[in-house]
Amino acid sequence: MLQPIGDRIIIKVQEPENQQVGGIVLADNAKEKPTEGEVIAVGAGKVLDDGKTVAPVVKTGDRVMFDKYAGTNVDYQGESYLVMHENDLLAILK
Amino acid sequence: MLQPIGDRIIIKVQEPENQQVGGIVLADNAKEKPTEGEVIAVGAGKVLDDGKTVAPVVKTGDRVMFDKYAGTNVDYQGESYLVMHENDLLAILK
Amino acid sequence: MLQPIGDRIIIKVQEPENQQVGGIVLADNAKEKPTEGEVIAVGAGKVLDDGKTVAPVVKTGDRVMFDKYAGTNVDYQGESYLVMHENDLLAILK
Amino acid sequence: MLQPIGDRIIIKVQEPENQQVGGIVLADNAKEKPTEGEVIAVGAGKVLDDGKTVAPVVKTGDRVMFDKYAGTNVDYQGESYLVMHENDLLAILK
Amino acid sequence: MLQPIGDRIIIKVQEPENQQVGGIVLADNAKEKPTEGEVIAVGAGKVLDDGKTVAPVVKTGDRVMFDKYAGTNVDYQGESYLVMHENDLLAILK
Amino acid sequence: MLQPIGDRIIIKVQEPENQQVGGIVLADNAKEKPTEGEVIAVGAGKVLDDGKTVAPVVKTGDRVMFDKYAGTNVDYQGESYLVMHENDLLAILK
Amino acid sequence: MLQPIGDRIIIKVQEPENQQVGGIVLADNAKEKPTEGEVIAVGAGKVLDDGKTVAPVVKTGDRVMFDKYAGTNVDYQGESYLVMHENDLLAILK
Repeated sequence: MLQPIGDRIIIKVQEPENQQVGGIVLADNAKEKPTEGEVIAVGAGKVLDDGKTVAPVVKTGDRVMFDKYAGTNVDYQGESYLVMHENDLLAILK
Repeated sequence: MLQPIGDRIIIKVQEPENQQVGGIVLADNAKEKPTEGEVIAVGAGKVLDDGKTVAPVVKTGDRVMFDKYAGTNVDYQGESYLVMHENDLLAILK
Repeated sequence: MLQPIGDRIIIKVQEPENQQVGGIVLADNAKEKPTEGEVIAVGAGKVLDDGKTVAPVVKTGDRVMFDKYAGTNVDYQGESYLVMHENDLLAILK
Repeated sequence: MLQPIGDRIIIKVQEPENQQVGGIVLADNAKEKPTEGEVIAVGAGKVLDDGKTVAPVVKTGDRVMFDKYAGTNVDYQGESYLVMHENDLLAILK
Repeated sequence: MLQPIGDRIIIKVQEPENQQVGGIVLADNAKEKPTEGEVIAVGAGKVLDDGKTVAPVVKTGDRVMFDKYAGTNVDYQGESYLVMHENDLLAILK
Repeated sequence: MLQPIGDRIIIKVQEPENQQVGGIVLADNAKEKPTEGEVIAVGAGKVLDDGKTVAPVVKTGDRVMFDKYAGTNVDYQGESYLVMHENDLLAILK
Repeated sequence: MLQPIGDRIIIKVQEPENQQVGGIVLADNAKEKPTEGEVIAVGAGKVLDDGKTVAPVVKTGDRVMFDKYAGTNVDYQGESYLVMHENDLLAILK
């Protein structure tokens, strides 16, 4: 299992549908970068200047929206995930 | 529903009227970028260094003005929105 | 009415007189950028790290001087204004 | 009268003497930029993170030395002044 | 023994398996940079603004994931290690 | 007399000896920049975020070492000095 | 004696052994920059935002490892030293 550190969140990215233009499947680098996914794991939260920790507002299972350039790609047990700071999340899809 | 995280605000952008020059409708990249819109949803507010949260000053339904380069474009259920930090808002149109 | 947010100030800019050189009216981009104007509206003030708000020192009606590159141009009901942080103001003309 | 805002100081600059090389008066852009002048007006002082204000250490009439690239040039009632943050001052000439 | 200072962590890097493309072993600079390894030693932790120290969340023996550009390579007694701030760690592999 | 402001220190620079290479006296811009000198005057000290002032650790007469790119050159009553923040000093020569 | 100021540390650098490639002694700029050395002197420590000082964790005589680009080279009484902030140290060699 991946246990994120501090204020980090691990996300299983949802690939955007029908990445085609006029029926032609786009090459990887032409595809729209994903901006949605599901939260797989959350860290303990952000450590403040006084040492206290602020718990994250998102939880495992939440569907979230994030900036397409946010986070770091990681591979773990054959799956790809995005690891980002909670602050890079834009919104929760309720 | 889109629930913004932290101090973020979601805005339905109002396209500037008659984007024409001498009767010619401007191409997308020549159009003036929008700077006004309606607040669709607000986050809980900014988390301060001591962990307290400052509630946002704007609320759903407010018409606001923002810097034309502010925010991130997102699509949700077929609609386009702008997500930005409350600090990027310039004024409320009363 | 435009209600500035946070520590922002809205200014009606005063165009510098006789923008001419040897009797020739200067083109827009050659004109001296304005550095004076009248305060039209003030925000609630700057929110400090502890969440308290510091009221602005300028008030509606004050004539102020500002850095020529400060602020954002906005149009509202056919008029042009500058929106800037109070910290970008240099002095009050008493 | 010019009332500086916050921690700003207004200075009447003293032009360096005999800006000549081998008897030739230097063109403006070749002249040494001034680094001395007299304090004309002081602001209330710097607002700290907790909202308190620290009074300035210089006062009207002090002769001061500053970095030649510091401050903003402003014109007021036909005179030229420099407006800078107190922190840009190097020393008081006693 | 290497005793990391402050919030630093020392990691024995795990080289990614079968760095080959079509059976050809990749040259060093073409290889994927490692992103996993084992914690060899931890510092006392981060010193906060008030002088208190926050103990690290990882401990010796933990397997961790980190950003491929994080840390500084060091050699010690014939072995290579990575030294990085705890904040550069992404997750603990549980 | 020059009274430095805040955490600034005024130093009378000591020119490095025998700036020659193979008996040839170096041109100004080829000379090693000085890194040592004597403290001529000290300011009241650095003002902290809470408004308190931390007295400087160096005093008039101390011989100090500093980074060769630190500080601002100033001329006063025919003498050249360096004005720098105390934080740019490396060590005191005891 | 060199008394470092604030959080600085003075290090006698240990040159890496046998800087040769194929028996050829490397020119200065091709040599590996040193990353180890002995602590010669320590400052009083870092001054925090509230004015308190945090004592350094290293002491005179400690062997330390540092980033090869850290610190400033200084010469004193015919010897060369590195002066760096304690925060640039990576580890203590125990």
